[in-house]
Amino acid sequence: MENSSARKHIVVIGAGFAGLTFCQRCAGLAADITLIDRQNHHLFQPLLYQVATSGLSAPEIAQPIRHILATQKNVQVLLDEVSQINLAAREITLKNSAAKPVAYDYLVLAMGAKTAYYGHPEWEQFAPGLKSLDDARLIRHNVLLAFEKAEGNPDPATRQRYMTIVVVGGGPTGVELAGSFAELAKQALRKEFRSIDPSAARVILLEAGPRILGPFDPSLSEKGVAQLQSLGVEVRTNQKILAIEQGKITTAEGAIEAANIIWGAGVEASPLCKQLGIPLGRGDRIAVEPDLSLPGHPEVFALGDLVSLKDAKGKIVPGVSPAAMQMGKHAARLIAGEIRHHVLPGTAARAPFVYFDKGSMATIGRSRAVAQMGKLKFSGMLAWQMWLFVHLLFLIGFRNKLAVLLQWFYGYITFRRGARLITGRDKTFVIK
Amino acid sequence: MENSSARKHIVVIGAGFAGLTFCQRCAGLAADITLIDRQNHHLFQPLLYQVATSGLSAPEIAQPIRHILATQKNVQVLLDEVSQINLAAREITLKNSAAKPVAYDYLVLAMGAKTAYYGHPEWEQFAPGLKSLDDARLIRHNVLLAFEKAEGNPDPATRQRYMTIVVVGGGPTGVELAGSFAELAKQALRKEFRSIDPSAARVILLEAGPRILGPFDPSLSEKGVAQLQSLGVEVRTNQKILAIEQGKITTAEGAIEAANIIWGAGVEASPLCKQLGIPLGRGDRIAVEPDLSLPGHPEVFALGDLVSLKDAKGKIVPGVSPAAMQMGKHAARLIAGEIRHHVLPGTAARAPFVYFDKGSMATIGRSRAVAQMGKLKFSGMLAWQMWLFVHLLFLIGFRNKLAVLLQWFYGYITFRRGARLITGRDKTFVIK
Repeated sequence: MENSSARKHIVVIGAGFAGLTFCQRCAGLAADITLIDRQNHHLFQPLLYQVATSGLSAPEIAQPIRHILATQKNVQVLLDEVSQINLAAREITLKNSAAKPVAYDYLVLAMGAKTAYYGHPEWEQFAPGLKSLDDARLIRHNVLLAFEKAEGNPDPATRQRYMTIVVVGGGPTGVELAGSFAELAKQALRKEFRSIDPSAARVILLEAGPRILGPFDPSLSEKGVAQLQSLGVEVRTNQKILAIEQGKITTAEGAIEAANIIWGAGVEASPLCKQLGIPLGRGDRIAVEPDLSLPGHPEVFALGDLVSLKDAKGKIVPGVSPAAMQMGKHAARLIAGEIRHHVLPGTAARAPFVYFDKGSMATIGRSRAVAQMGKLKFSGMLAWQMWLFVHLLFLIGFRNKLAVLLQWFYGYITFRRGARLITGRDKTFVIK
Repeated sequence: MENSSARKHIVVIGAGFAGLTFCQRCAGLAADITLIDRQNHHLFQPLLYQVATSGLSAPEIAQPIRHILATQKNVQVLLDEVSQINLAAREITLKNSAAKPVAYDYLVLAMGAKTAYYGHPEWEQFAPGLKSLDDARLIRHNVLLAFEKAEGNPDPATRQRYMTIVVVGGGPTGVELAGSFAELAKQALRKEFRSIDPSAARVILLEAGPRILGPFDPSLSEKGVAQLQSLGVEVRTNQKILAIEQGKITTAEGAIEAANIIWGAGVEASPLCKQLGIPLGRGDRIAVEPDLSLPGHPEVFALGDLVSLKDAKGKIVPGVSPAAMQMGKHAARLIAGEIRHHVLPGTAARAPFVYFDKGSMATIGRSRAVAQMGKLKFSGMLAWQMWLFVHLLFLIGFRNKLAVLLQWFYGYITFRRGARLITGRDKTFVIK
């Protein structure tokens, strides 16, 4: 029998926005929390594209998890991978740390999402996605290397291939990448080569649907296209991808030779979800109860990107960081309440999760962005300043904020990129 | 026959302090310069240990070479490796860029040095050295990972091994690494773990000779030992290394179990020197003529770390960055003079190189350093401030200076480290 008065153990998997917020909201709670992540750092994902395009360095958008939670004594952080979740036995198995399974009273699943290739896993090697710092460094490496190779190659066709970047997916990530690559080639690199002219580089954005920036109002999609075009990006909609090979991507309109193909077309839930033995929704996401718990398992919550949910007001909750943070707060409130009142999981009524939509924004480049807040729509300089303000505000850590502000200010004035490094012994994705 | 009036082609191999200074000193010269480097960035090597110990991020101490030389139109930068040097035919062969060999009128060898294991190449895999950003990131990765593994491991002996760092070599690099690791463990990480106490970590500095900081005055060696000990570093001299295995290093006094063994015990010249077919000196260095040219090859100069030379005043020129820069200036002056006066290489008298010793300094930690200028000796806070000033002054690039200053200021106040990331798909050196 469960002893409702013993100190409870909460296991949290994943230190993204959802998992970290959950832990922070449990500060002071008389419970033991174990937070497990495969990385040692919390990543500020909304700025990851800046690392991929040489604007920021990796440490500027990442903080060690245990540093963030240093003073919160009820949390132990473990760098590890979860190899198995046993819902029936209420325990998880770790890959490295513990010899035997770890029992939990509450389990919080917040592993996030990974890049989805929609039935074409073989495309990954030719078109890397952007989910981690390693991904971002790899893309940076390959794009910068391609310009170096173009400089050293006399053949015009090969040069053109090296100087072509295709971004797949016209959502906010794809738009941000495409705009930032165009700025990199046409401004930052412009005067530094002797044999090639980097401003002749092509950046092509391919979107499968009829318009880019799908979650935004159609008028903002149009403004987004215009802003991308003003940077020299070729925007092509209704482009279903038929094939991707090394340096070549094919749509119904034909093949494009490009040394760099970046996949920003979508995500699916962490593979761990599949082994839970419960029905999954779109993109292997977990169809949670209105209170964010798993059907039949009130002691297990799922948060963030790996959840498929219409909230209590019938609104589909998007896979964005504000939603993840709100879910983290909600689950913390429910669990903390039950622990404080010595109530067994789910035996008292629980409030359903309600998503508060603060609006969406996507940056396209220097002084270029789109933003939407309810019925209010913004684009251009004003939207860009809003984007800057919001992202600085939420960037975790004082030092990072100052450093990032300094970088942006410097980049704004000089058009330079501060982190143009080609490094890494890893040759998995090295362009040919 | 050589046409002395045609535009000359100067090939420079290596964009370290020597090669880069040479190119910059040739600004405005009516000659074509091709600068070849295996990396796309110039590295500020004196601060590399800061990347290895999480104090600075890689982009803060590196700048793209072509960015530094963007406005100098007579230089073309190529990211490539030299596979062969043919002194007789006066041409070099590149690995990637050019299909046929590249002819030169002048050749400047400035490839620098690599970590030397003195007849034990098999030690490299267990005790990485510190010469590149990849090396630094690898060491950072392994050291931070070891503390994470200790946190997740219940066995006291295994924990102690994870929490032991051995630095081999008591020169400035070894001293800087040891001091910085001690600060990392005992200050930055102190409050962030729950199962282990990072301040119980051991940092051991092993030196083969009778004292550390050999190039300095013996009184400063003693001050260095005292400052290291005040940080908790165990300093052991007269320690000849007998064996290095995975996680274990053996001297005559016995074996030390340590998850991280860092090799800072010496360097040897680039392997390219061996295929020149000329006699080499200590550590495969090139014994150049007093003017820095190769014996019998007045059109070929060797600069920096790969040169073995007593200067015109009988002083052994050390392998440090000021010497490299001075050599770069000297060679540029000689070559530019000959080109401007349409003189064939070496047919007019050349001035010998004279090394101007500005002094040496080594930092040991926060407010701790030693410095020596001629007969003047400094240690502690004053030496540390001098070190700070000199390194900021010479750090290339305005943005970097500001960013690094900000980092240092922040680190000084808070004892925090800004770049504590465990990343990288490369598992070559992953600790066990």
